[in-house]
Amino acid sequence: MNKEVTAAIYRGNRSFAVETRCTRDPGPGEVSVRIAYCGICGTDMHVFHGNMDARVGHNRVIGHEMSGTVAAVGEGVSGVSTGQKVVVRPLDHCDDCPACKAGHRHICHNLKFLGLDTDGAMQEIWNVPAHTLHALPGDLRMDHAALIEPVAVACHDVRRSALEPGEDALVIGGGPIGILCAMVARERGGRVVLSEVNPNRVEIARKLGFDVVNPAEEDLSARVSDRTGNKGADVVFEVSGTQAGVDAMTACAATRARIVMVAIHARKPQIDLFQFFWRELELLGARVYEPEDYDQAIAIISGGEVDADTIITDVSPLSGIQAAFESLESNSTALKSLIKVGDGA
Amino acid sequence: MNKEVTAAIYRGNRSFAVETRCTRDPGPGEVSVRIAYCGICGTDMHVFHGNMDARVGHNRVIGHEMSGTVAAVGEGVSGVSTGQKVVVRPLDHCDDCPACKAGHRHICHNLKFLGLDTDGAMQEIWNVPAHTLHALPGDLRMDHAALIEPVAVACHDVRRSALEPGEDALVIGGGPIGILCAMVARERGGRVVLSEVNPNRVEIARKLGFDVVNPAEEDLSARVSDRTGNKGADVVFEVSGTQAGVDAMTACAATRARIVMVAIHARKPQIDLFQFFWRELELLGARVYEPEDYDQAIAIISGGEVDADTIITDVSPLSGIQAAFESLESNSTALKSLIKVGDGA
Repeated sequence: MNKEVTAAIYRGNRSFAVETRCTRDPGPGEVSVRIAYCGICGTDMHVFHGNMDARVGHNRVIGHEMSGTVAAVGEGVSGVSTGQKVVVRPLDHCDDCPACKAGHRHICHNLKFLGLDTDGAMQEIWNVPAHTLHALPGDLRMDHAALIEPVAVACHDVRRSALEPGEDALVIGGGPIGILCAMVARERGGRVVLSEVNPNRVEIARKLGFDVVNPAEEDLSARVSDRTGNKGADVVFEVSGTQAGVDAMTACAATRARIVMVAIHARKPQIDLFQFFWRELELLGARVYEPEDYDQAIAIISGGEVDADTIITDVSPLSGIQAAFESLESNSTALKSLIKVGDGA
Repeated sequence: MNKEVTAAIYRGNRSFAVETRCTRDPGPGEVSVRIAYCGICGTDMHVFHGNMDARVGHNRVIGHEMSGTVAAVGEGVSGVSTGQKVVVRPLDHCDDCPACKAGHRHICHNLKFLGLDTDGAMQEIWNVPAHTLHALPGDLRMDHAALIEPVAVACHDVRRSALEPGEDALVIGGGPIGILCAMVARERGGRVVLSEVNPNRVEIARKLGFDVVNPAEEDLSARVSDRTGNKGADVVFEVSGTQAGVDAMTACAATRARIVMVAIHARKPQIDLFQFFWRELELLGARVYEPEDYDQAIAIISGGEVDADTIITDVSPLSGIQAAFESLESNSTALKSLIKVGDGA
């Protein structure tokens, strides 16, 4: 049975085509999900800017920060019911590489990221491997549920840091992932300082109750030192992707601090390795998430521990995807922009 | 009671003066150690080159890689007997800073390194705080015992890496500390590859039974990849202090590898942070040692698990200290050069 669905297709050159096309029934081991909302990720913006054309091509439905309901279940899939609210953990691994064999499937050497390496969630019906599904509570708002994927990123980052209650945490960079790292770290009992230079983001972070330092106006390391009795931050999240952020991550770190590398640094910044030696610092790379991070993100969103309404600053229909992406380039007050794909709410 | 002892005093400008001067009895909490041997550390070479004049001045007895016997015991010191063979763990901490309070006394914010911040072991009698002593077995050769301090560095580095038996380890840099890291890693069951460009050091490392790659002649990351079934090294020790070493440490690392930063990088090298993110690498700074590292180094040297006679390439009398330091600058076959300070053997 083929059905006609609306899909937004990335066509290259900063453009989406919103088209009607046929979808197929779920194959063996697959589930069809009717998409409710799909958030626009920083990675999606990279696609829009043409930086990932070699990987995604010019005929790709992108999107992975989604919420939806099960529309149909393929052969051999058990424990999944039509109508169930779900999110998809958009990772498909090979089970055969050294990383998979060592139990690190989320960083599989041959990882397929759904919505980049395969079609994604900016379409009404999305067929995905059943193993990627996480069930949601029936009363969860589907717009809020679209934040689960980025919250899972933050849960993974904070778990990598091994943050303990009462420890001092510094988050460098107050974009969506930085804000969510700060929220998850606070929820775990961390004493959080957030560093951000964009005044609009500073304002949002303060509205969310954070102690925010604008390093363009104030000496960040002096502030962290003051606040921590000259100790420094026990945990640092580098989410800025800048040389200034990399300089701050060592300058503000306590002896034996854990620094989590969340940002994607396309260039190779200079790092103060002497401080790694001198204070026995640790740097921990963190990428995507594991199933337990999704479970925790679902609990956090369901429990209302993240102020979703403040983080979601824009919602557009699928037909308005082009304008939504363009707006994110110029709108400095935007934090998380969602596309309302269907009526799955 | 003052006694006359011979001491080598660093006078600045690449020079030592060997002089007779008075020593004092040990004060409360102190022990006088009659020095047998003292090795020349890379840090001592930095002093010789004038790079640490601001810290050590021009009237300093340096040296910390020592062995000796207890000559006298000060007031309030218990459990230490005259004639006992000992080594000194040359670290004096403040017990009051955030690092000490967190239990990391070896990286105390106000750490005094004996032999740099205070006088050291290139003299016949050395007064040290009693808490710095480790007792040695009575039958241990005192020239071999002078290797305990650098072996303790290697024990600390390997302990930081959490190396498990059967894991693949890459040591980048085959100077004394690199060789000792390789030996300790091998002793723990690691499958070790050593990277070194100096042909004389390559030869010594091969003589010690290591699989050595000269990255000037061979593609190091291809070799590591081949050897590990395309997995990469589970543990990397960066001991070279070079940009090339820093490039290799990420290029050769397995997914979730632990990279131990042993080298002192005075400059800030460029680091491939993308690989930290992509493969969830860990970078762990490692500095000096803790008491348990000394205990383990003593067991390793006592057990003959390190080929001390191959590592010790030169022994000079204290009167020949100037020539010994000068020789280390030009002698590319030297690995560890010892000064025979007294008759404590």
